Amino acid sequence: MALALNARDDGAKRPASLDRLAEMLQADLARVNALIVERMQSPVGLIPQLAGHIVAAGGNRLRPMLTLATARMCGYSGDRHVALAAAVEFIHTATLLHDDVVDASDLRRGLATANAVWGNKPSVLVGDFLFSRAFQLMVEDGSLEVLEILSRASAVIAEGEVLQLLTSNDTETREADYLRVINAKTAELFAAASRIGAVLGGRAETEECALESYGRNLGTAFQLVDDVLDYTAREVELGKSIGDDFREGKITLPIVLALRVADERERQFWRRTLEQLDQRDGDLERAIDVLHRHGTLAATMARAADYAGEARRALAVFRPGLEQQALDELIDFCLERAY
Amino acid sequence: MALALNARDDGAKRPASLDRLAEMLQADLARVNALIVERMQSPVGLIPQLAGHIVAAGGNRLRPMLTLATARMCGYSGDRHVALAAAVEFIHTATLLHDDVVDASDLRRGLATANAVWGNKPSVLVGDFLFSRAFQLMVEDGSLEVLEILSRASAVIAEGEVLQLLTSNDTETREADYLRVINAKTAELFAAASRIGAVLGGRAETEECALESYGRNLGTAFQLVDDVLDYTAREVELGKSIGDDFREGKITLPIVLALRVADERERQFWRRTLEQLDQRDGDLERAIDVLHRHGTLAATMARAADYAGEARRALAVFRPGLEQQALDELIDFCLERAY
Repeated sequence: MALALNARDDGAKRPASLDRLAEMLQADLARVNALIVERMQSPVGLIPQLAGHIVAAGGNRLRPMLTLATARMCGYSGDRHVALAAAVEFIHTATLLHDDVVDASDLRRGLATANAVWGNKPSVLVGDFLFSRAFQLMVEDGSLEVLEILSRASAVIAEGEVLQLLTSNDTETREADYLRVINAKTAELFAAASRIGAVLGGRAETEECALESYGRNLGTAFQLVDDVLDYTAREVELGKSIGDDFREGKITLPIVLALRVADERERQFWRRTLEQLDQRDGDLERAIDVLHRHGTLAATMARAADYAGEARRALAVFRPGLEQQALDELIDFCLERAY
Repeated sequence: MALALNARDDGAKRPASLDRLAEMLQADLARVNALIVERMQSPVGLIPQLAGHIVAAGGNRLRPMLTLATARMCGYSGDRHVALAAAVEFIHTATLLHDDVVDASDLRRGLATANAVWGNKPSVLVGDFLFSRAFQLMVEDGSLEVLEILSRASAVIAEGEVLQLLTSNDTETREADYLRVINAKTAELFAAASRIGAVLGGRAETEECALESYGRNLGTAFQLVDDVLDYTAREVELGKSIGDDFREGKITLPIVLALRVADERERQFWRRTLEQLDQRDGDLERAIDVLHRHGTLAATMARAADYAGEARRALAVFRPGLEQQALDELIDFCLERAY
């Protein structure tokens, strides 16, 4: 990814960050965090213990920030966005916990996830608890429209996760299959979290759709960048390790594109490592080398930039202002965290 | 369980069955089943495939029948009870799928569950899908009161399942802990499913509470009997295998009561088999023998009968009639299936 590294190395532009958005939403975010801690409590002590671990690790609060910022951009001045942002984060956290569930065969491959600490079952059940709490928060809020958006999103996310399982380890996966997976498992919640802002602001259907489109394209760009990062991130700097997708045999876009131009030797390499999961020392390095050689990491970044452009166009429907600008910068952040 | 066997052997009374209730609700139940099949569909083929397996295996439709019958008893004559009964069954099915999740250590102990076929992860994700579908059905129905009852129930069930994990393999578990577990993991959904009937019928708070109490006591009796059956059921006749709880080290009431009167040798036996899960040939037979000797299976049945009595008293609030009588017979069925 020469392009990305250059953009960083020449120092022409400070990389975008979440700082402006986080600063603008500071007070609201503090209330969301307090509510999250309050509502993950349970007389069953293991629940707040395990939930606290994943909620803290979940980290950047990107999705609840979408709800908070879009609501304010839409002129909403009440309190409801706080509880709904917490509900969005609970759904995200439950998904993370369930996504970490492993089968015995995975364990043998040496995966280390949050579940490694407590085991599968507590993680699944605490995920269910948080998911139920999300719905309780929405029911207390009382908007059937919001409930409709988020219950639909939850079903779509589950479908996306199952679809991802089916495409894992399948080197026949096409770009369209891959895009279907990330649209469901990642972009859907970004879209729902953003759309809620327009619902809270009482905006017209057009603006609801514009925010849904903003969230969906942003989420798609975010996931594409995430998939690139899995082959390029510097562990120390970004707190992210590389090679997780490779070890699990996930067929992400850089791989799909590399398979398209692979010669027979490369095809055998991908089949052995990603389908049969027969991985040896040096395989990850070889994979990274092949992806660079075919330029598929840069090509994936270019596609992410296209989706980012769509997100920007959707946002242009709204009057310029502090929130609109912060949501625009968020697009840059999602792209540039790869640099 | 001499008492139970006698009741069967003397042939004085035909054992209660679900027949009358099922016959009365035949048309409604057919619509619930059709809706369940319709709403478990997904473009992701594995979802209906796996969901179909568990929905078929889930079997007796006891919980949705509670919603259907209580709604009719409360004079409700519309259509909404069908979708809400399907939602209740989806929540139950999701719980079953998540309850089947196993850890590598369980697999080594040779457990065979539905998850053995597809693995943990698909089961978890399909459970999430069904759970989301349940909420979508409720949102389409549009009653925030029903949503409140069932989202709360879902959170309580998850808490109960976590609590059960914590008491598993713990021979210090007290009767109160055990009752707390089954109240949450089983009785809560029986209570919610029944309460919804009063909500649909537009009945007063008193009647909502009476039906909640009916469901909760019925569910408690049902679970107590289930725990007895795990040590007494005849496999062929009831399609239930015995010894599952024992093999998992679950501390159910017959065990709690046996531990209370155990001498040092028995205590060591329970610790070895249920805490350390060091089980050998003949251990299950010895366990059953000890439970019989101390009369704890009969004592558990006696407690189930107490809860059944409470359920009957709660039902007495309602005017006698076809539905009330069928709901009364359901109490007998829940008790007598152990005979």
